[in-house]
Amino acid sequence: MAPNKPGAASGNGRWHTNLTLNEPNRILIRGYPLDEMMGRVSFGEAIYLLLTGELPGLSIGRLIEAMLVSFIDHGATPPSTLVARNAATTGSSLRGAVAAGVLGFGRHHGGDILACRQVLDDGLTLVRGGASISDAGTTLAGRLVETNEIPPPGFGHRFHTRDPRATRLLQLAHELEVDHEYSQLIRSLEHALARHPALSDRSLPVNVDGAIAAICGDLGLSPQVADALLIISRVPGLAAHALEEQQRESPMRAINPNAHAYDGPSERRLPERRK
Amino acid sequence: MAPNKPGAASGNGRWHTNLTLNEPNRILIRGYPLDEMMGRVSFGEAIYLLLTGELPGLSIGRLIEAMLVSFIDHGATPPSTLVARNAATTGSSLRGAVAAGVLGFGRHHGGDILACRQVLDDGLTLVRGGASISDAGTTLAGRLVETNEIPPPGFGHRFHTRDPRATRLLQLAHELEVDHEYSQLIRSLEHALARHPALSDRSLPVNVDGAIAAICGDLGLSPQVADALLIISRVPGLAAHALEEQQRESPMRAINPNAHAYDGPSERRLPERRK
Amino acid sequence: MAPNKPGAASGNGRWHTNLTLNEPNRILIRGYPLDEMMGRVSFGEAIYLLLTGELPGLSIGRLIEAMLVSFIDHGATPPSTLVARNAATTGSSLRGAVAAGVLGFGRHHGGDILACRQVLDDGLTLVRGGASISDAGTTLAGRLVETNEIPPPGFGHRFHTRDPRATRLLQLAHELEVDHEYSQLIRSLEHALARHPALSDRSLPVNVDGAIAAICGDLGLSPQVADALLIISRVPGLAAHALEEQQRESPMRAINPNAHAYDGPSERRLPERRK
Amino acid sequence: MAPNKPGAASGNGRWHTNLTLNEPNRILIRGYPLDEMMGRVSFGEAIYLLLTGELPGLSIGRLIEAMLVSFIDHGATPPSTLVARNAATTGSSLRGAVAAGVLGFGRHHGGDILACRQVLDDGLTLVRGGASISDAGTTLAGRLVETNEIPPPGFGHRFHTRDPRATRLLQLAHELEVDHEYSQLIRSLEHALARHPALSDRSLPVNVDGAIAAICGDLGLSPQVADALLIISRVPGLAAHALEEQQRESPMRAINPNAHAYDGPSERRLPERRK
Repeated sequence: MAPNKPGAASGNGRWHTNLTLNEPNRILIRGYPLDEMMGRVSFGEAIYLLLTGELPGLSIGRLIEAMLVSFIDHGATPPSTLVARNAATTGSSLRGAVAAGVLGFGRHHGGDILACRQVLDDGLTLVRGGASISDAGTTLAGRLVETNEIPPPGFGHRFHTRDPRATRLLQLAHELEVDHEYSQLIRSLEHALARHPALSDRSLPVNVDGAIAAICGDLGLSPQVADALLIISRVPGLAAHALEEQQRESPMRAINPNAHAYDGPSERRLPERRK
Repeated sequence: MAPNKPGAASGNGRWHTNLTLNEPNRILIRGYPLDEMMGRVSFGEAIYLLLTGELPGLSIGRLIEAMLVSFIDHGATPPSTLVARNAATTGSSLRGAVAAGVLGFGRHHGGDILACRQVLDDGLTLVRGGASISDAGTTLAGRLVETNEIPPPGFGHRFHTRDPRATRLLQLAHELEVDHEYSQLIRSLEHALARHPALSDRSLPVNVDGAIAAICGDLGLSPQVADALLIISRVPGLAAHALEEQQRESPMRAINPNAHAYDGPSERRLPERRK
Repeated sequence: MAPNKPGAASGNGRWHTNLTLNEPNRILIRGYPLDEMMGRVSFGEAIYLLLTGELPGLSIGRLIEAMLVSFIDHGATPPSTLVARNAATTGSSLRGAVAAGVLGFGRHHGGDILACRQVLDDGLTLVRGGASISDAGTTLAGRLVETNEIPPPGFGHRFHTRDPRATRLLQLAHELEVDHEYSQLIRSLEHALARHPALSDRSLPVNVDGAIAAICGDLGLSPQVADALLIISRVPGLAAHALEEQQRESPMRAINPNAHAYDGPSERRLPERRK
Repeated sequence: MAPNKPGAASGNGRWHTNLTLNEPNRILIRGYPLDEMMGRVSFGEAIYLLLTGELPGLSIGRLIEAMLVSFIDHGATPPSTLVARNAATTGSSLRGAVAAGVLGFGRHHGGDILACRQVLDDGLTLVRGGASISDAGTTLAGRLVETNEIPPPGFGHRFHTRDPRATRLLQLAHELEVDHEYSQLIRSLEHALARHPALSDRSLPVNVDGAIAAICGDLGLSPQVADALLIISRVPGLAAHALEEQQRESPMRAINPNAHAYDGPSERRLPERRK
């Protein structure tokens, strides 16, 4: 237990928050009145404001919404979802099931964001030292193979050979012209891994963690903020699975992840106005 | 421990989810391809889709975003935020601090939604039996005083005499013409409480929990879905406070909720394009 | 959100704890120096002291240890254990997996304690009104069948027809002469359920939750303390399963509860000195 | 997200646990019938059995009980306790408050165990290379100062200048003749830190985390098992504080850790029979 060192920001015990002012009848979120935001600022934009201190512009706002949508759910089989469902089957509260599900994101599952950013930062160090993006990607791939960090954080997937979420995010970043060195580097690393002789039998596409890590890097968001976006994004999925478990299934059932199927709507297209 | 009764939906162990299809290279959320949604559907709209099965129309979508924004954070003093900050000051992971914060919503704090819906449902039972909205409100107020459920769930606040979030939500619902019997009843109950002789010294305005409970009722959303929206909404706030605690303060500090102040931006207006 | 009413015990913000004194170089647990307790007081006895304020006598101490041992683990299939294992397989911290597992105890699983005590308290109300223990049991059984609370809290089990933990606890309480009206009533209710014509095809023995609820009643422990004993008891089991999952299995595996078996030591007898 | 590699222990999906056999009417914990253990094996001994696979002998059993008692509670001010109390003040369930409290043990608080073992293991590497325990301590102290890991994990305390729990544990280990190289090394390191010129103004005694880390090392327990003992030990304290908060205080109160005092029994001696 570390001795308590008073923080510089907390002289004589007084401390501060720059997030939210809360006083009788008035709530400011980073300076903007909350009631004025309501109906004019979307939830995705408010999340960005709260985490960074400023509202996003149109392009970045659209990318933030896309990132938040990308991780919203991944079906009934991820261990985190099974955590939430197993809690729900015992009749736990929704809060209990959701909190438990949030805890089901260890370093092998959603923990890639921080590690992937570290790898990309190492690559950008090479770039600032004069290497091209292409060469930096090749060097990184070599190191990862050497240290046996395969699959590298941000790459590969249990079953997607091309993660549709990553593909779409990087495409959207490109369309919106907010993809810069991090996104370029991660594409470069993806190509270098695909070309590496030691990995010729492996499929290691960029996955959604990697795409989010890269795009957040290009948006100037810290790895911690990127990590927060992942958690925020998945909470609706955890809640939805917990509720479905309690509404459709009997309590205290044995949940076999290998014995389930999707019985929701067939594939359908978005309404015209959204295209 | 209840004996295990196989669910009707789970013949011979096989079970189903109608939320998300997840197969190699293809993810459908309630039938819509996730990668198509990204960049075209906002996070708020995707949350509604996941929880209800359909995308919202424009008005309802705007109201959903407003509800999600309304509960996004409430400053550093709610006990749930202090739970997250106290976890964060020990150096916990972001997931740990957020999960802990979610658990800091007991029946006195965010648990009002379910109870408030119950009260409103009781009132609507009177209405369907022939009572006017106004008389139902008066009857409910009388019962709540009698059973000493004061403050009633959905009403009153530790320090707001007029909860700006509730005011704005009910106004927006009215503007968008989606306020119906639940919203009318909660306003009626608010007036009846204000008129009740036994409560002349109390300020019991509708609070944000009550407004959300009522509006969700008018939107045909179950109390459980309303409850989920609250949790989903507050997770960004919990994450932001945990991150601020770890970035600005020393570890293992004694967090005194009475000794803090806001040092964020002064009140400012939203950019023109959003008005 | 309920208005904040200052507690009578907290005049001008000052509050108290009667559990533990913690000052430089001195720690008292309910008055006893912690370092003196160490090596002289068992963990089970210290738990009882912390929760009730006094050290247990020899008989009660033995019963407390037995209750704590009775719920320590129940194998890999309870949903709470699967919660912990699913969190562990993602590489979560031990704290995360254990906390998640604790949340996997909803009202159908370990939540029986509080409900069972309620039923028994209802029965003892009848007894204090003049009914015999036997008649009270019969009346309770009738009510539970009528309101379809079958299985009643504290009775029945997913697969034990005679819960060995409940049998042993009630026997030990009898040997130690600490079984009184609660234990007598629960046995009476067990017999009444067995005799009830509507339940002739059901096996509804007292289960461990019921035995603990009854014995705690006879020991004068509140339902909340009984509930605490359950949680405290199961935490070692959750930790052990999380550790085994991380030590023996690959990360991110699909955990099928129907596809496991025990491969630990065969049944063996306790060493001589313990008999 | 790492691709799923089937574990060697899980051919064709079948997996095993060596902890607990659970079948109708029979429960074995590491081979011992649970109902036989009840009344004959203490909770502390059962914890050791579950985590290691064997019952402890008398000396080790006594030390395990002492370690579990040592960390059972540390008053109302540790952040983990404030996490539990803040959850409890909102009316959360006991499980919710306890789970939240468990999450309040980050790397600065109870996370020292794993880090401290690492330091001690580094020192023992020196010893196996021929250094004396004394020289290894001095070398370690030098390294820790150089890398500014002050206070080192397992040393120092927010306010104890001599942690009574650590003193008692190391003494008891010595009396029971189970202190070996880890305990000797930690004492050596303590002396070396005290003698180091750069630390002449600091008080860095071994703390309870360090003592537990060392003793578990001497008992052949892995750092993970030592970590589990800490969590298991503190759960009763978290539960007791959550219950006291809900029983003595009003809901939704602002909990100021600087404004509390102990009002439990004055210091008292253990009953005669325990000395």
